Amino acid sequence: MSGNTMGLLFTVTSFGESHGPAIGCVVDGCPPGLEISEADIQAELDRRKPGTSRHVTQRREPDAVEILSGVYEGKTTGTPIALLIRNTDQRSKDYGNIADTFRPGHADYCYWHKYGIRDPRGGGRSSARETAVRVAAGAIAKKWLHQRYGIVIRGHMSQIGEIAIPFKGWEHVSGNPFFAADPEVVPQLESYMDSVRKSLDSIGARLRVVAENVPVGWGEPVFDRLDADIAHAMMSINAVKGVEIGAGFGCVTQRGSEHGDELTPQGFASNHAGGVLGGISTGQDIEVSIAIKPTSSIAQPRRSIDKQGQPLTMETHGRHDPCVGIRATPIAEAMLALVLIDHALRHRAQCGDVSVDTPRIAGRIG
Amino acid sequence: MSGNTMGLLFTVTSFGESHGPAIGCVVDGCPPGLEISEADIQAELDRRKPGTSRHVTQRREPDAVEILSGVYEGKTTGTPIALLIRNTDQRSKDYGNIADTFRPGHADYCYWHKYGIRDPRGGGRSSARETAVRVAAGAIAKKWLHQRYGIVIRGHMSQIGEIAIPFKGWEHVSGNPFFAADPEVVPQLESYMDSVRKSLDSIGARLRVVAENVPVGWGEPVFDRLDADIAHAMMSINAVKGVEIGAGFGCVTQRGSEHGDELTPQGFASNHAGGVLGGISTGQDIEVSIAIKPTSSIAQPRRSIDKQGQPLTMETHGRHDPCVGIRATPIAEAMLALVLIDHALRHRAQCGDVSVDTPRIAGRIG
Amino acid sequence: MSGNTMGLLFTVTSFGESHGPAIGCVVDGCPPGLEISEADIQAELDRRKPGTSRHVTQRREPDAVEILSGVYEGKTTGTPIALLIRNTDQRSKDYGNIADTFRPGHADYCYWHKYGIRDPRGGGRSSARETAVRVAAGAIAKKWLHQRYGIVIRGHMSQIGEIAIPFKGWEHVSGNPFFAADPEVVPQLESYMDSVRKSLDSIGARLRVVAENVPVGWGEPVFDRLDADIAHAMMSINAVKGVEIGAGFGCVTQRGSEHGDELTPQGFASNHAGGVLGGISTGQDIEVSIAIKPTSSIAQPRRSIDKQGQPLTMETHGRHDPCVGIRATPIAEAMLALVLIDHALRHRAQCGDVSVDTPRIAGRIG
Amino acid sequence: MSGNTMGLLFTVTSFGESHGPAIGCVVDGCPPGLEISEADIQAELDRRKPGTSRHVTQRREPDAVEILSGVYEGKTTGTPIALLIRNTDQRSKDYGNIADTFRPGHADYCYWHKYGIRDPRGGGRSSARETAVRVAAGAIAKKWLHQRYGIVIRGHMSQIGEIAIPFKGWEHVSGNPFFAADPEVVPQLESYMDSVRKSLDSIGARLRVVAENVPVGWGEPVFDRLDADIAHAMMSINAVKGVEIGAGFGCVTQRGSEHGDELTPQGFASNHAGGVLGGISTGQDIEVSIAIKPTSSIAQPRRSIDKQGQPLTMETHGRHDPCVGIRATPIAEAMLALVLIDHALRHRAQCGDVSVDTPRIAGRIG
Repeated sequence: MSGNTMGLLFTVTSFGESHGPAIGCVVDGCPPGLEISEADIQAELDRRKPGTSRHVTQRREPDAVEILSGVYEGKTTGTPIALLIRNTDQRSKDYGNIADTFRPGHADYCYWHKYGIRDPRGGGRSSARETAVRVAAGAIAKKWLHQRYGIVIRGHMSQIGEIAIPFKGWEHVSGNPFFAADPEVVPQLESYMDSVRKSLDSIGARLRVVAENVPVGWGEPVFDRLDADIAHAMMSINAVKGVEIGAGFGCVTQRGSEHGDELTPQGFASNHAGGVLGGISTGQDIEVSIAIKPTSSIAQPRRSIDKQGQPLTMETHGRHDPCVGIRATPIAEAMLALVLIDHALRHRAQCGDVSVDTPRIAGRIG
Repeated sequence: MSGNTMGLLFTVTSFGESHGPAIGCVVDGCPPGLEISEADIQAELDRRKPGTSRHVTQRREPDAVEILSGVYEGKTTGTPIALLIRNTDQRSKDYGNIADTFRPGHADYCYWHKYGIRDPRGGGRSSARETAVRVAAGAIAKKWLHQRYGIVIRGHMSQIGEIAIPFKGWEHVSGNPFFAADPEVVPQLESYMDSVRKSLDSIGARLRVVAENVPVGWGEPVFDRLDADIAHAMMSINAVKGVEIGAGFGCVTQRGSEHGDELTPQGFASNHAGGVLGGISTGQDIEVSIAIKPTSSIAQPRRSIDKQGQPLTMETHGRHDPCVGIRATPIAEAMLALVLIDHALRHRAQCGDVSVDTPRIAGRIG
Repeated sequence: MSGNTMGLLFTVTSFGESHGPAIGCVVDGCPPGLEISEADIQAELDRRKPGTSRHVTQRREPDAVEILSGVYEGKTTGTPIALLIRNTDQRSKDYGNIADTFRPGHADYCYWHKYGIRDPRGGGRSSARETAVRVAAGAIAKKWLHQRYGIVIRGHMSQIGEIAIPFKGWEHVSGNPFFAADPEVVPQLESYMDSVRKSLDSIGARLRVVAENVPVGWGEPVFDRLDADIAHAMMSINAVKGVEIGAGFGCVTQRGSEHGDELTPQGFASNHAGGVLGGISTGQDIEVSIAIKPTSSIAQPRRSIDKQGQPLTMETHGRHDPCVGIRATPIAEAMLALVLIDHALRHRAQCGDVSVDTPRIAGRIG
Repeated sequence: MSGNTMGLLFTVTSFGESHGPAIGCVVDGCPPGLEISEADIQAELDRRKPGTSRHVTQRREPDAVEILSGVYEGKTTGTPIALLIRNTDQRSKDYGNIADTFRPGHADYCYWHKYGIRDPRGGGRSSARETAVRVAAGAIAKKWLHQRYGIVIRGHMSQIGEIAIPFKGWEHVSGNPFFAADPEVVPQLESYMDSVRKSLDSIGARLRVVAENVPVGWGEPVFDRLDADIAHAMMSINAVKGVEIGAGFGCVTQRGSEHGDELTPQGFASNHAGGVLGGISTGQDIEVSIAIKPTSSIAQPRRSIDKQGQPLTMETHGRHDPCVGIRATPIAEAMLALVLIDHALRHRAQCGDVSVDTPRIAGRIG
C-alpha cells in the first residue's frame, strides 16, 4: 500500500502539488447510501481556508471541491469518491532560485535526497496545502460517523507559545480565528500573534481533539490499536511533532492509583486513558493532543546550503502562516474521523455490527 | 492487513496469549543472506526478561526462542522466519473470578465488549508478555540495519515519576536495572522504586530512543511518513500514552527562529526536528521519546464492575512490575528498528539502493 | 486496501463511472526520474479507443488524459501521479427504465444487491469504460519497464469464436482492427464479425499476452507468486473468465517428461512454464492467455426481472462492441505491465537491485 | 503486505520449509465465538495426507496440527490463531548434490536467482508440503462459512490426463483415492495411473471446485473482484497453470445469446457466469476449474545445469506423487474458502451484514 493512501477499508489516496494543476483524493470503501454533497465538504474546507484573518496566510485559495465519482443522486454508491480541488492562486514567478536551495525546517533537502528530483513550486508535495484534501475526505467520514453512531468530533487550540488556552466550551471555538474555546483569551492571543509577526518569527501550538459517542470495542490490537492508528494519523500531519492520548506525557508522573480509571455501574470514574485501553475504545471520549511546530518559513535570515553544498543565507518573504497550528484544528478533526471510520468498518467486519446499546451475549459467533 | 501484522515489506505477524501454549511471530520479507542465530535473538530477549532485579516482576520466564523456518545454515533465505517462545511459567490456578470481572486500567473490559469472549488468563492477548515477540523480531531488524548501514539503535530511561534522569553516556545504560544513562542517579531510583512498591502503587516513566546513522531519504509521505510510522509503532506498545519526535511538545513554545534547524556545509546546525523533516529522514539522529503509564495492576483496592455490571472492589496481588517502563527500553528499540527496516526496503523499492555517500545525480531514473 | 487499488508498491487507485463527470486514477509509488508526458499515455489510450472500426462500438470518446500531479518538467517526481479523463459523450437520456431492471450478463443485479443503490447510467462503475484508466496507468509502467530492463509487453488476439488466429509476427498486430498477428486471416474475421453483428449477437475471444526480457527472480511466493498476481490482474478485467500461464489447461494432458522445461547452458529448452516456476520468473518470456466472454448487451430479447422481482423482456440497442475482446488487448498488456512493475519494486526492496546480467554471488546480504 | 500473507481481513500468514523443524501459519481476523478444535482441522488435513494409496507419494507425514493461540475453551477469541505442524519424516541424507543443481520444472533455479541462497532440502519453501498449512487454515474458514451462511465448498477431479471424469454426485468423491465423482471410472483411473507410474512419468489433471449458498453481493470491484481473488488464490497453489470461472475458456466460442444468464423470478436460468458477474457473487454456485501440471520430479533422465552453469543429467527417484493433482482437491477447496471468508468480512465491513433473505431497501445507509 503506497505512502499516499491511508486506511485499510475506508481509504484516502491523496495526490497533488501545491502549485500543480490540482490537488485531490480518492475515497474508497465508503458505505453506500450516505447523503453527501459538495456543500457538505465545502463547509469543512472553509473552516481551514487561508485568508480569513490577519493571523493566517493571506494566500487566497477558494479551495472549491468537485465530486467526480461515487455519488449518484446525492448519495454515495459504495464506489470510489474522487474529490478534485483545482489550484487557482498559482502566482507565476521564477522558482529557479528556490529550486537550487533547501529552506531550513522544510522538507526540501529530504525530498531532493530521497527522489533525486523535486517540484520546488510552493513546497510541491510537502506543502501544507495538501492537508485540504484530508479535510475534504474527513467531511465524509464525519458525516457517516455522526449519522450512524452519533459521533461528534471537535477540536480546539489549547496552547499557543507560552499561552495556555482554557477550555470554556465548544460553542466558543467558531467565534474566533484561533479555534480557542475561551473568548476572553482572544484579545491576548491577537496581540501575542501580532508581536510574533512583527518580530518576523513564528510560534508553535498545541491542539486538542475529542471524539464523543464512540462505541466501546473499536481498535485492532496488537499493532493496529486505535490509539496507534490515531498517533499515525496525527503525526502524518505537516508540522506535528508530538501526540498524546488521554493523560499523555502527564502519565509519567502519575501513580497507578491515580491514572487507572475505575469502573462503576454508571461508567468509568475518570478518563486518564483518553478513551482507549489495550488499543480498543472504552466508550469514553477519545482525547487526543498534538504539538505543532512553528512555521519554518520566516522572514529572518537563516543559514542554509544549495544543491552543491555551498553555504548561503535565505529569508522567506511572502504569504505564510505565523502559526501553522491556527488552521490545523479542522485537519486534526478530519484525521481523527478518518481513523474512526476505518476502525468502525474493521470492527464490524470481524465482529459484526453490534449496536452500542445491545448487551454482549457470551458465545455469540461473530 | 490484519491488526496483528506490522510493516508493509518487512512484516511481523504476532500471535499468542500470556498463558496459552506459546507466543511467537512470523517475520516476512527479511532480506536474504543475513547471518542470524537463536543466540542473536536471545541476547535481546534477555535484556527485557523479567526477574532480573527487585524492581521488576518476579515472574520467571526463560523466554527461550526457537527459529522454526527461514534460516538455512545460519543465514536468512528470504522466506518467512517463524519464531516460537513456549510459555513455561503458567501457574495453574482458578481464573473463574478474574474471568467475570474487569481490572481497572486494563483491556479486559474492551476485549470483552469487542469480541464477546476473552481469554482471562494473565491478561490473555493484552498481556505485556506479547512484547517479547517484538523484541525477538526487532533483533533481526537491528542486525541487518547495523550490518548494511551501520545503524545503531539505543534507548534509555529519561524520567521515572518526578525524577528526571540525565543522559551521561550510552555506556552506563546496561550497568543498572533501570536502563538509566547516569550511574549516579541509580541509588535515588532504587530508593524511589522501593517507596513506590511499599506504598502498593506504581509509577509512570519516560523513555528516549535514538537511531544513529540512518541515511537521508527514508519515509513515504504524505501518510506513511517515517515519523508517523514511528508514532504508530511506539503507541502500539502496551501502556504508551504519548510519542514525541525531536523537540516534541517542546516545540509548542519554540519560535521558528529557534526550532528550524539551519543547514551548513558541515551538516545541520541542530536537531530539533529529531531527524525527520516532511516525514523523511534527514540523516541526523532519529530522536524519539515515549510516555509509559504506571502499571494498572496494584495491590490497593480499586472499584470495578463484573460482566453483569455489578460493582465490586478488587486489588491485584502477585508478580507485577511496579513500573512497566523499566523493562520497556528493549521494546522501544525493537519497534524503532522494525519501522526503520521496513522503510529501508520501501525506499529502495521505489528509489533504488543509493548509498548514503553517493551524491544524488539529477535526472536519474529510480 | 480498498478494492479499487491494485498493487502493493506501484499502486493504481481507480475511480469513475461511465457517465459521471470523469474517470481517472492515482498512480503511486512510481520511481522518480522517468520522462512521461500526456502524449505517451495518450498513445496507449488511442489503441483501446472506441469508434475505430465497424467491429467495435461507435461510441465516440476522445479519452483525452490530463496529468494532474506527480510530474515536474516532464519527469516523474516519485509523488502520486493523478490521471484524469473527462467523460464527454454522455448522451442525456432517461435512465428511469434501466434503473429499475437488471440487464442479463451484466453486474446490475449484483451491484444493486451489494450496495442497495447503483448508478445505472451506462453501467456506472461496472462499465468497460473503466478499463481506459488501466491502460493509462499501464502506459507509465510499460515505459519504465522498457527503459530500465528492456522489457517489451505485447498482446494479440489468438481466437475469436471458432476461428483460431495463427501467430505470424508482432508486426502484423497494429495493421488490423482485431489485433490479429496474421494479416491473412483478417478478411475471414471481418466477415465473421459482420455475420455475428447481423445475427444481433456477440462472440467470445481469446487473447495472448507476452512479456519479453523479464529478469529471473520476480515474484513473491507462496501467495503473491508472479503468476498468481497476473491471474488476479487478468481476471479483474471486465468479461474475463479464464487465465492461463504457459501451457495452461494444456498441461492437463501433458506428461511430466513433456511439460517440465529442461535447462541447458544456453537456457531453458522449452517454455511450457510460461516464464514462471514456483511463482518466480524464470527469465523466459511470460506467456499469458485469457478468455473473454461475449458481450452481454445484445439486441435480442432476453428474459430478466426488475427490482421488484417481476419478469420482463429486454433487448439492448445502442452502441455496443459485438466482441469486447477486440479492444481488450491493450488492457491485458497494461495489466501485465502493472503486475510486473509492482514485482520489480517488490523484488528490489527485499533482494536489492541485482542486474539481470550479474551472476549471483552466494552469501550476499540482500 | 508480505508475499506469505493472503487475505485482507481474514489473513493467513504461512511459514515453513519442507525439511525444517515445522510448517505452520497464523490466521488473523477470524470472527470470535467459533467453536474450533484440532480435530476439526485434522479432519481436513487427513484428506490431503500422503501415503493413503499407491497413487500418491509414500512419504509418511502424520501432519498433526497444534493450535498455539487464539482459541479459549474451544472457541475462537478473535485474536490470532497460530497453527503448528512439526515436520517428522525428515530422512537424514546428504543434500550436497541437490544443493548445487536445479531440478527441471522446479523452482530451484528461480529461488536461487531471486535470493542468492536457498534451502535445498526437499524443495525447501517451494515444496508442496507447504499446502498443508492452507488446508489447515481453510478448515477454519469452511466451518465459519458453513455455520453462518450454510455455505458448502466441495471439489472433485474432473480430468486426469486424457480421461475426463464425469460428475455423478458428491457422495462418490470420498470413496476413492482420486476424488472422482464417479465410481465407475475409478478402475480405469487406477490402471491409467499404474501405467503412468510404470513409464516413470507423471501426468496433469483438472479439478473443479464449487461453493454453494454463497450470498449475492460478495466481491470488491474493480480490482478485488471475487473472481479475481479466486484466480489469485488458485494460481498460488503449487503446479496450477490455469483457472476458469464458470464457462471459462468455453466462453470463447459462445455467443452472447448463449452465455448471458437470463434472470427469472425463480432465479437465474443458467450459470455460465459461474456465480460471479462484474466481480460480485450472484447468489448462484461459485464454479471454479483449475489445471494442475504433471509432477516435475520423475525418474527419467532430464537435462539440467548446476550453479556454475555446467550441463548435467539428473533423474529424481524417491517418494513423489505421479499426479500432484490427486491430492490437490482439499487444497483448492481450502483456497476457495479462504477467499470467500475474506470477502464475507470485507462485504459486511462496507455494507453491513444484510442477511441473504432480507430484501434490499433502497436508500439504506450501509
